[in-house]
Parts: sequence; structure tokens; C-alpha cells
Amino acid sequence: MTTTEPTGDTQAPARSRVVEWGDPIVTAAGMSGRTGLEFLQTLVAGELPPPPILATIGAALESVEAGKVVFTLDPAEYHYNPIGSVHGGVYATLLDSAMGCAVQSMLPEQVGYTSLDLSVKFLGAIRLGTGRVTCTGTVVHLGRRTALAEGTLTTQDGKLLATGTSSCLILGG
Amino acid sequence: MTTTEPTGDTQAPARSRVVEWGDPIVTAAGMSGRTGLEFLQTLVAGELPPPPILATIGAALESVEAGKVVFTLDPAEYHYNPIGSVHGGVYATLLDSAMGCAVQSMLPEQVGYTSLDLSVKFLGAIRLGTGRVTCTGTVVHLGRRTALAEGTLTTQDGKLLATGTSSCLILGG
Amino acid sequence: MTTTEPTGDTQAPARSRVVEWGDPIVTAAGMSGRTGLEFLQTLVAGELPPPPILATIGAALESVEAGKVVFTLDPAEYHYNPIGSVHGGVYATLLDSAMGCAVQSMLPEQVGYTSLDLSVKFLGAIRLGTGRVTCTGTVVHLGRRTALAEGTLTTQDGKLLATGTSSCLILGG
Amino acid sequence: MTTTEPTGDTQAPARSRVVEWGDPIVTAAGMSGRTGLEFLQTLVAGELPPPPILATIGAALESVEAGKVVFTLDPAEYHYNPIGSVHGGVYATLLDSAMGCAVQSMLPEQVGYTSLDLSVKFLGAIRLGTGRVTCTGTVVHLGRRTALAEGTLTTQDGKLLATGTSSCLILGG
Repeated sequence: MTTTEPTGDTQAPARSRVVEWGDPIVTAAGMSGRTGLEFLQTLVAGELPPPPILATIGAALESVEAGKVVFTLDPAEYHYNPIGSVHGGVYATLLDSAMGCAVQSMLPEQVGYTSLDLSVKFLGAIRLGTGRVTCTGTVVHLGRRTALAEGTLTTQDGKLLATGTSSCLILGG
Repeated sequence: MTTTEPTGDTQAPARSRVVEWGDPIVTAAGMSGRTGLEFLQTLVAGELPPPPILATIGAALESVEAGKVVFTLDPAEYHYNPIGSVHGGVYATLLDSAMGCAVQSMLPEQVGYTSLDLSVKFLGAIRLGTGRVTCTGTVVHLGRRTALAEGTLTTQDGKLLATGTSSCLILGG
Repeated sequence: MTTTEPTGDTQAPARSRVVEWGDPIVTAAGMSGRTGLEFLQTLVAGELPPPPILATIGAALESVEAGKVVFTLDPAEYHYNPIGSVHGGVYATLLDSAMGCAVQSMLPEQVGYTSLDLSVKFLGAIRLGTGRVTCTGTVVHLGRRTALAEGTLTTQDGKLLATGTSSCLILGG
Repeated sequence: MTTTEPTGDTQAPARSRVVEWGDPIVTAAGMSGRTGLEFLQTLVAGELPPPPILATIGAALESVEAGKVVFTLDPAEYHYNPIGSVHGGVYATLLDSAMGCAVQSMLPEQVGYTSLDLSVKFLGAIRLGTGRVTCTGTVVHLGRRTALAEGTLTTQDGKLLATGTSSCLILGG
């Protein structure tokens, strides 16, 4: 994936970026015969194509352990809203990913999940100068039918940019 | 913007898409001397470059009136999560946009806003076959210091896919 | 139930109120052999003791139809927080009741529910002079495993005091 | 305050409880000339009447430090909903109190706050046999205009019964 550098030049022509992604059916098929944790570790290792949404927003799955998942993102101009900073939807996409995967990392083979809700509290603006942001999802409660995860989005020096919660329904099992 | 058609072919090479967007500084400068409603109408009319995030996720600002804003999106493979449907972050991006802009549409010149939170309830999966989805944000309460908006995400035949709420802080004024 | 009138007199002795309620086991037993709607209608008709929490906060179940339930409350000094108005927990109790019962009103015999979450947006203060408030819960989505309800809290002349959402898990069925 | 013991006897007469509380104007006046922390410490010390809502639901303010407040409650029959356990509104009242007071504990003299929202995730039922529950509110973010608190509700042996979040608007200052 390549990105035109933001120039701040109001006369600049349209900027462009090429997004490439793999077939999501291949990724989804990789869940078969693996626990949630094994599937996510396979993604971290690059042995399966990352889900297309990650390419679209330019995020990376950084690490996975049981009940805790970390994504990172380098803020770029293509994340911007019309009021001069990274759009709230980017925060939400990172948090939804991290919290959903944290729940998935606790599930045995053949057990799936679906997110029932996503709640985000915005605590600080993200701009190009913010640098790399880290989004961590952790499981707070794992029940038989539902799970609750929470998430944080922080700068490299630990400043809190947002928090989130997500309830998931556990399927199968 | 061009998009490779999803093929369902697990042997297919990486798919790609070129995203183009305009300078967000030009868009932001367009707020000067305009009410929130006038600014958003200028975006609908295509007289200012759309915010980069809209190009990134492939959404369009469809219509604006005082207190009500509509976005649309055609689901595509590049929106997919690893579990075979459109990622929750896409729902969240649409809802955050529609609810934030609905609040902005009520603000006079020189008055800004920032979103304090975003809450999304996921009610139905979106897949390629779902077809175009419509996201509507409406203002529920406009106070002196804060505003509350709610949003819906529906199919073309009115099936409810998600609902949202967002509280905004009103700045300046 | 009797209530000492608030006097505004800072020298007044402690105020007191007697709360009386019926055995909740009797109320719960009344669900047997009734749909959710029939059970709630029996409560409205006064043929079963109201749940203790309603006596505790002085609220009344006013009306029930399929998918919509209304509670009322007359604000009193015993609802007050330390900052001079009705405590947010009273709003939350009304909204949780109205939204939960709205979901229950859609359930057949032998099918129960439990609330997964409650979210309240506070839009206006309630004080003694506000007069009777009305809390309405309505079902937005009824799925096979979960349901979503929303609620409003308003004054007698329709001013919006709060909104709420609640997701419920459907049990049995 | 006295409480009739629940008997489980379906033939029992109505149960009753006398609730006594102090004048909330006296309590509110105690904020004058005190920081938020000093005011709350005065309440813990019993030097001001507790807010009426605490008497109504039978909760106690247990401890206060800067950014962290703890309430306790002994579950009783008068907290029950019609489905055989403590009503969600009681959870919400405890969490709203603990999170609001945690924010207040960080505020200087003459600076007030109001809760914008309350969100509760219900993780476990509370019944008479659950024994005393502890509700802790902590400040996650303190900005110039808004603050964010989170809360937990737990049993004496640390089982998580609910979590909450609340955004507050800071007034004056």
C-alpha cells in the first residue's frame, strides 16, 4: 500500500492511495480447525491474508494473547474528517477490531461470536503529528452466552485518546 | 475511485482499489463564513472536496437539511471483517458521520462541535448482497453546551441494520 | 405509602416515609401460564402485587400494549441527589423498567429475558416543580436471541428529560 | 431505617420499611467553601445528612479519595424486580453515584458537574444471598470541559456483577 504524503498545499491535485487486500474467504476458511487464539496468531504471523478492512484503514494486528489483542495505526491524511483530525470512525474501527478479537481469542474451535454493540468515548484528537496509535482490547467478562470486552486507544507515550466497550454474543459452543 | 469486483475465487491474486481524495485543509477552510447547514450543503453540491474518510470507506453524503443528514454506502469486499461480513467499524463510521453532521447542521457560523461519544447497536449483518445502505442522523436535543443525535442504518427496503447515539460538545457560540 | 412534604426548612427534623410492598414471589409466580403481555396487564390491573422496586422509588406502571410500556413518577424529595435535583439513578430505574417491560410484552409464555445493558442520556434536570414525569419504553428490534428497546422520559407537556437504550437477551423460547 | 425480613411466605401481609432522610438543602449548602473532595469527606464523616436517594435505596458512602469513591449496599427484598432479583435500576443508582462522586472528588471549590450519560453492563444477578455489594467509581480522564469515569460493582469476594461508564460536563471552573 502506498500513500501520497500530505503537503498542506491547498493547490495540490487530488491525492491517491492504492489499497490491496486478499480474498476474505481464504481468511475466513482459516478459522476451521483452529481455536480463536490459534486463528488470530496465524493472522499475526502473516500466514493468512489480513481482513480487508485492515487494509482499507491501514491498521495492523500487532499481537495476540488469550484475552488481549493489540492493533496499531499510523494516522494519515486519508483518515481525516472535515474538521481537521482523524475521523471518529477510525477510532471505532480500531476499538471494534481489538475488542472483538479479544473475545475471539478466548473461544474454542467451532465457537463463533458476533458483536452486539460498540461504545466509544472520545478523549483526545488524533492528527498526523500524534504518531502511531495503539489500540488494546481486553476481555472483562466471559459468560456462557455473552462476553464483555473493553478497549483503550493510546499514543506511544501512553496518553489516553479513547476508551471503548463491546458486548458480544457467543454462537455455537 | 475504482474497485476490483469480488470474485469469490480463493485462488485470486490480491485485489486492489485506488482511493483518491482532496486536501482536507481546503474542505475545512470552507466552513469559514458559512453556517453548519450551508457548509454541508456545499459538500452535497460537490463545491468542496469531500472529507478524506468518505473516500477511504467509499461513502457518500446524500442529503442535508436542518437537523437531519443522510449518507449512503454500497457494501464492497474491502469493507469485510474476517468473519464474512461488513466490519462494525464501517457501521460506526457511517453513524458517527451522520450524527455529527446532523448536529453541525444546526450550528450557526463560528460555532463548532466535537463528538464526545458514539454508541452503536448492531442489528443485522451487511454483506455484498445487502445492496446500498442508508445512514440517517437526526438531532434529538440541542442544548447550549451539548447536543444529542441518534442514527439509523437501513437497507433500501427499510430493514433496520443498526442504531446509534452520539453526544456532542458545542464549541464557541 | 405516605410521604412527608418537603418544607425547604433547613431546621426541619429528619423526614420520613413508609414504604410498603408485596411478596415478590407472588408477583413472579404470576408469570406462569401467561404471555409477557398478559402478565404485565395483570400488574396494571392491580391483580398482582407490583414489584418491590416500584414501591421503593414511588413509580407506577401506567399502561401496557404489545411493544410499548409506560411508567409514571411524581418527583419527591426522597429522589434527590446532593446537588439539588432528582438523582440519575431514578431516571435509570424508570428507563430500565420501561424498556425491559416493553421487551417482556413481546414474549410468549415460558420465554424470559434479562437485560444486558442500560444506557441513559440525561437531557434535563427533574425537580419537585417539574411535576409528574412519564417514561415510555418501546421495542425497536426483536430478534431470536436478543431484543433492543429504547426509552424516553418526558414532562407532562412533552419536554424531553432523558433517552435510553437497552439490549436484552431472550431466554428459553 | 428498619426493614421487614423477607419470609418467602406467599400469604404474608404487605411488608414495610420506614425511610428517613435529611433536608437536601442542608447537604447542598455544605458544598460551599469546600472542594469536591472535602465535601465528600464531610459526608463520609457523617457531618452532613446523606443525600435522600441513598436512604431511599439503602446505600452507604463508604470511602472517598481523590478520583475514587466507594459505595456499599446490602441487597434486600425492597430492591427486587418482578423477575426474582435486584432491579437494574439499583445497579444504575450505585454506579451513577460512585462515578459522579469520583468526578466531584477531583473538582476545586466553586466548580460543579452534571452527568451527561450513564452506561451499565449487567454481568451477574444480585439476590439476597449475594450479600453486601461494593460499587467503586474511578476517574479515567479529567479534561477542562468534560470528565470520564468508570465503575465496577462487585461481591465481597471480588466477583464482577456490573461495569459502568459516565461522562460528566464540568461547570464553572
